[in-house]
Amino acid sequence: MRGELIFVGTELLLGQIVNTNAAYLGENLARLGVDLYYSSVIGDNLERIKNTTQTALSRSELVIITGGLGPTFDDITREGIATAINRELVYDPEVMAQIEAHFNRVKYNILPMHRRQAYVFKTGCQVVPNPVGSAPGLIIEVDGKWIIAMPGVPREMERMCNDTIFPWITKRAGKGIIKSRVLKVCGMGESTVADALNEIVEPLTNPTIAFLARPNEVSVRITAKANDSDEADRMIAVVADQIRTKLEDNVFSEDNQTMEEVIGCLLVKNLETLAIAESCTGGLVSDRITDISGSSRYFQGSVIAYSNNVKSQLLNVSESDLEQYGAVSSTVALQMAKGVRKLLNTDYGLGITGIAGPTGETPDKPVGLVYIAVASDKRNNAREFRFLGERTTIKRRASQMALDMLRRELLIK
Amino acid sequence: MRGELIFVGTELLLGQIVNTNAAYLGENLARLGVDLYYSSVIGDNLERIKNTTQTALSRSELVIITGGLGPTFDDITREGIATAINRELVYDPEVMAQIEAHFNRVKYNILPMHRRQAYVFKTGCQVVPNPVGSAPGLIIEVDGKWIIAMPGVPREMERMCNDTIFPWITKRAGKGIIKSRVLKVCGMGESTVADALNEIVEPLTNPTIAFLARPNEVSVRITAKANDSDEADRMIAVVADQIRTKLEDNVFSEDNQTMEEVIGCLLVKNLETLAIAESCTGGLVSDRITDISGSSRYFQGSVIAYSNNVKSQLLNVSESDLEQYGAVSSTVALQMAKGVRKLLNTDYGLGITGIAGPTGETPDKPVGLVYIAVASDKRNNAREFRFLGERTTIKRRASQMALDMLRRELLIK
Repeated sequence: MRGELIFVGTELLLGQIVNTNAAYLGENLARLGVDLYYSSVIGDNLERIKNTTQTALSRSELVIITGGLGPTFDDITREGIATAINRELVYDPEVMAQIEAHFNRVKYNILPMHRRQAYVFKTGCQVVPNPVGSAPGLIIEVDGKWIIAMPGVPREMERMCNDTIFPWITKRAGKGIIKSRVLKVCGMGESTVADALNEIVEPLTNPTIAFLARPNEVSVRITAKANDSDEADRMIAVVADQIRTKLEDNVFSEDNQTMEEVIGCLLVKNLETLAIAESCTGGLVSDRITDISGSSRYFQGSVIAYSNNVKSQLLNVSESDLEQYGAVSSTVALQMAKGVRKLLNTDYGLGITGIAGPTGETPDKPVGLVYIAVASDKRNNAREFRFLGERTTIKRRASQMALDMLRRELLIK
Repeated sequence: MRGELIFVGTELLLGQIVNTNAAYLGENLARLGVDLYYSSVIGDNLERIKNTTQTALSRSELVIITGGLGPTFDDITREGIATAINRELVYDPEVMAQIEAHFNRVKYNILPMHRRQAYVFKTGCQVVPNPVGSAPGLIIEVDGKWIIAMPGVPREMERMCNDTIFPWITKRAGKGIIKSRVLKVCGMGESTVADALNEIVEPLTNPTIAFLARPNEVSVRITAKANDSDEADRMIAVVADQIRTKLEDNVFSEDNQTMEEVIGCLLVKNLETLAIAESCTGGLVSDRITDISGSSRYFQGSVIAYSNNVKSQLLNVSESDLEQYGAVSSTVALQMAKGVRKLLNTDYGLGITGIAGPTGETPDKPVGLVYIAVASDKRNNAREFRFLGERTTIKRRASQMALDMLRRELLIK
């Protein structure tokens, strides 16, 4: 089934909100085997809703339209579709009763303008209940093709998709699915990864491979078209194994896990504990570690040592070393890692110190210079990094490489 | 000037990444007076890049295309445009020299595939430097209309827009601008804000008002159409004053500053210092504080006290209180705030303890229960909150309310 998305909303065009519905629908439709080639954003304008709907119907079997079903005067998606397919909208008292029930449930007063939401198509139209909002969805048949209209509020749209729309699509999409798996790589740039995998990737037609670069992380997505989920899994596994063999330990995650999830799994498996001493990352590494539910099993705590006082007083970093080598140095990173490990009595200590910028650089210490150290019974290890970007990007990159260094230490037997 | 956006990338269609570039460009083009009616997302497919570019050129004067300028085989936006406008791409040694300079700067090896990025149009084409990446942008004239192609990596695109593209557009866009200002509110829900402002908002036609809710933050955007920037500023200021009078101290920012920027300004102004003790937020509050350049002037550091041991050992939280009231309690939040303030010798101490979930709740302490305390010479103040949402949402909401509590304490004379 070939599908197409239309997002209606001037606020989307003007960039006042980010279109997260696009990602949600894109991901799920791919999973359901709908081929998506086009996706458009248009404002709340009758003519453009009409034209875009007609163009979409001319080249796709399934047109999903979100937004513009609200009660206010600028919500005119219903009218736009009516004009596009030349079909009449009629007031439906049963739909009105559902809308009233919703307002009673949430204890809001219903207003005259909400009557507009009870208009549906007289023929070829299935009304989709909205359990968490007032605007119902519509499934409209047009000469053997389909338009699905849903509210733009993500919470309402997602609920409607899960309850009604996705099961409806699954029934009609027939045979064949698309399935993806994501391997994540740290420690190599995007073009280095692409280059290393070139001879694996080039001859492939199914599955296919796509790369996506984030700060100090490259996702390698393997996408297979197959008759069913098991077949897709088998096709993907063959390619994933080849990639894993080629990139070795640089692959940190084989099924889209985050770096912090991977570290959590390793620490839980080894029954080991962690403490962190952060300077330039300012708490970001600890924040990421504690995004994982159950992290209290291995994470004891951190010291965010932003000032030199805190470094020497709490982490026992030598004041003369601070003076001699500076706070941004390999030796201070190591002392931070050892210090926090001892202070919080853990198996691993992770220390990060650097210059996140844009101010604070000196002739020999540029913005982006970061030292990361891991202390454990196995060994004490420190490394120097130079990151590019804005302050928050440098923090993000440093947090990623700190976690990756820790991961590699955890893997040492 | 009528503009149109085309985003090229199968990963966008498949929902593997969220299209934040759309919001960035939408917002800025509106500000520059470009009328945006259409925005499309298509995959990395030659035929569809060609068709969409031709359709866009037929109805808009300015077509901005992002993505698909990378070095790998699936990056074919250049070729798609070439086919659409029937114009030849040629290898440009000067562009190649810039690409090589970039790779030298970041100390990466240049690969044969990067040569592809040095192909530009033979005629009617201005090459736009990319100071933070390898792919240059292109400004292409086509029969008095314009195509602008930029890389899809947000950091590279934004830099290119600021340095070259926006000034270029400003020159050509001519008269009339749209300008916005964002007031941010904390401590009131979206509908409460909308209700309170109803009599201000309803009669307005220019400026207009839009609301946007984020976790524990409501943005009120005032948008004016005017002949020039000064006129727009004056029109916006009148409405902003009315809103400020109505919502009082719940307005924490009057020009789109983040909560952490506002707190930084207050601490710098008062020459005061801050230390933080975090449990359930796991470092997120400190991370946000240190996102601000210059935060080392007021932020001494934090203790992330994830285990009870750390709470009692480092922050001097009473072990018997931990036993009697539990770690998630008003008294422990207060002791954390006081403890970290004393430990790091600061003017303010901020303490946060709670249950981020999804596990860890008890019959009398549900997921989302959070206690926040601020300690200072003025007073010691603790409050109970109940937040809804996933683990990371609860962390985010708790961090926001912690910073807002701190802000309100900072405002006390």
